[in-house]
Amino acid sequence: MYSFNELHEIIEKEIDGLEFSAPPEGLFEPMKYILGIGGKRLRPILVLLGANLYKDDLSKVCLPAIGIEIFHNFTLLHDDVMDNAPIRRKKKTVHEKWNSNVAILSGDAMSIKAYQYIGSCEDKYLRDVLTVFNQTALEVCEGQQFDMEFEDRNDVEIEEYLNMIRLKTAVLLGGSLKMGAIMGDASSKDAELLYHFGVNLGMAFQLQDDLLDVFGDEAVFGKKIGGDILSNKKTFLLINALETASGDVEKELKFWITTKSFNPEEKIKAVGTIYEQLNVREYSQNKIENYFALCLEYLDKVDVDAEKKKELYSLVKGLVDRSV
Amino acid sequence: MYSFNELHEIIEKEIDGLEFSAPPEGLFEPMKYILGIGGKRLRPILVLLGANLYKDDLSKVCLPAIGIEIFHNFTLLHDDVMDNAPIRRKKKTVHEKWNSNVAILSGDAMSIKAYQYIGSCEDKYLRDVLTVFNQTALEVCEGQQFDMEFEDRNDVEIEEYLNMIRLKTAVLLGGSLKMGAIMGDASSKDAELLYHFGVNLGMAFQLQDDLLDVFGDEAVFGKKIGGDILSNKKTFLLINALETASGDVEKELKFWITTKSFNPEEKIKAVGTIYEQLNVREYSQNKIENYFALCLEYLDKVDVDAEKKKELYSLVKGLVDRSV
Repeated sequence: MYSFNELHEIIEKEIDGLEFSAPPEGLFEPMKYILGIGGKRLRPILVLLGANLYKDDLSKVCLPAIGIEIFHNFTLLHDDVMDNAPIRRKKKTVHEKWNSNVAILSGDAMSIKAYQYIGSCEDKYLRDVLTVFNQTALEVCEGQQFDMEFEDRNDVEIEEYLNMIRLKTAVLLGGSLKMGAIMGDASSKDAELLYHFGVNLGMAFQLQDDLLDVFGDEAVFGKKIGGDILSNKKTFLLINALETASGDVEKELKFWITTKSFNPEEKIKAVGTIYEQLNVREYSQNKIENYFALCLEYLDKVDVDAEKKKELYSLVKGLVDRSV
Repeated sequence: MYSFNELHEIIEKEIDGLEFSAPPEGLFEPMKYILGIGGKRLRPILVLLGANLYKDDLSKVCLPAIGIEIFHNFTLLHDDVMDNAPIRRKKKTVHEKWNSNVAILSGDAMSIKAYQYIGSCEDKYLRDVLTVFNQTALEVCEGQQFDMEFEDRNDVEIEEYLNMIRLKTAVLLGGSLKMGAIMGDASSKDAELLYHFGVNLGMAFQLQDDLLDVFGDEAVFGKKIGGDILSNKKTFLLINALETASGDVEKELKFWITTKSFNPEEKIKAVGTIYEQLNVREYSQNKIENYFALCLEYLDKVDVDAEKKKELYSLVKGLVDRSV
């Protein structure tokens, strides 16, 4: 059995070795660039972990796993164009380094490359792997569409938000594990349990990201605190706060999300304090714990020795312990 | 055996019946829109014709054929964003009717839908169909990349241009026939012959389009004449003219492609006359005839009764007769 870190190394090595050498270079350079600027490689590692629960030889699972990472990076590339984001992982985004057309077209080519790699699984798994992947990939687009639509809406409800992050983020974690399980010859019951494990892990992870963006330790979290507050992003925290606030607190919150001129530090502090006052921080922490608990319940039921599951348990533990 | 027109009706009916009903509507409305504004449906018909050479029952080939049409329309949708084109088939383009983000994201979702439909072929063909499709789809992106790069270059050579249109246009016609042939249980030799038939047909078709854009009959051609001349598009005609012109003719041609202020009618007429003087029109006609001839050579070799091939022969004849 491989450790998480060993799998991470395998993935990095595969990505380093990727050859997209055919002309036109303008199409393939951006692919190499975005795949080369890092990232946690969580999704391809989940594919390998899913398979590794059931088989030791992962040699035929590696390229499909890389396909999932290519797909994920394709979505980031196009999301960055749509969000007009200048920076990704501390580097210029593709449309900033080149231009929007390059970003659109090399993204399109990446999505096809993703299918090539995912489709390089063994014949006996091809139908099932593709079915899971197609469904998941479409849901990721649906999530991004909801996310964009929410920007122009002031009546987004909690359930809608949770559905959006499920689609945009969580299903790809679940789908990665499930595809790995399929390529490991897992029972369909186990594959389904692992899917739900991954989806709930993704939900916890995304809600935790929202929380860390407000209350995290900048040095540990790795990015600037308060970005969501400054942009009035409709996170789990803000939607909840808007639903529960009344009286002066409601007035103050609405002041901060409508005023155009403000001191950034002051706004971050004020809105953070409101989240505490309204117990939105605590509510969010509870919700995250619930998702982690659910995710462990699913993992417990997976029908393999506990020893085999230890990397997945410690992955969960590591995430629970992210400093909040 | 089905006639071309019968197959066209089958495809239109399938497209009318497509249900992309899941929320978010903002993702699926643009798909319905672009698929609904017409087009020749040539590619899905070629899939069906390819299969129909070998089998009568096309019921399991229809959805994969629709997948090819979805893919083709996805490329048009993204190409229109990249070219900033306001009109497609006399209707507003998707990014004009909605916006660029909608066009990018619904295009992405269309490419996944395309894979879903293409992947709905029978299991025994899945690997081979996907291999052809992945390769072809990637080449279409490569062609679009070359096309965009050529806009900023003044030294594009004929062979580069021919390679670009092969990738951007011709391979998808060849690939459509080949995928159809695979789903009809054709021999791999026949599938290959049909691929080359389609590629050469596509080359002839595209070069003819370039020619009709200058010398065509507006009423028959269906779009305004001279658009390529006005935008200095590096077509087969212009590249050839630039390569062969010398002396006063070269001066005149360079005047027309550099001057910013001109009477459109006058420019179209003048450049058209230069093409005639340089025998570029005639050279282009010969080239087109060569591609048609090649394409018929491949079709002759396909190992099925001539009677079965008659729809493909008359498709070629119909294209040869497009008025030039």
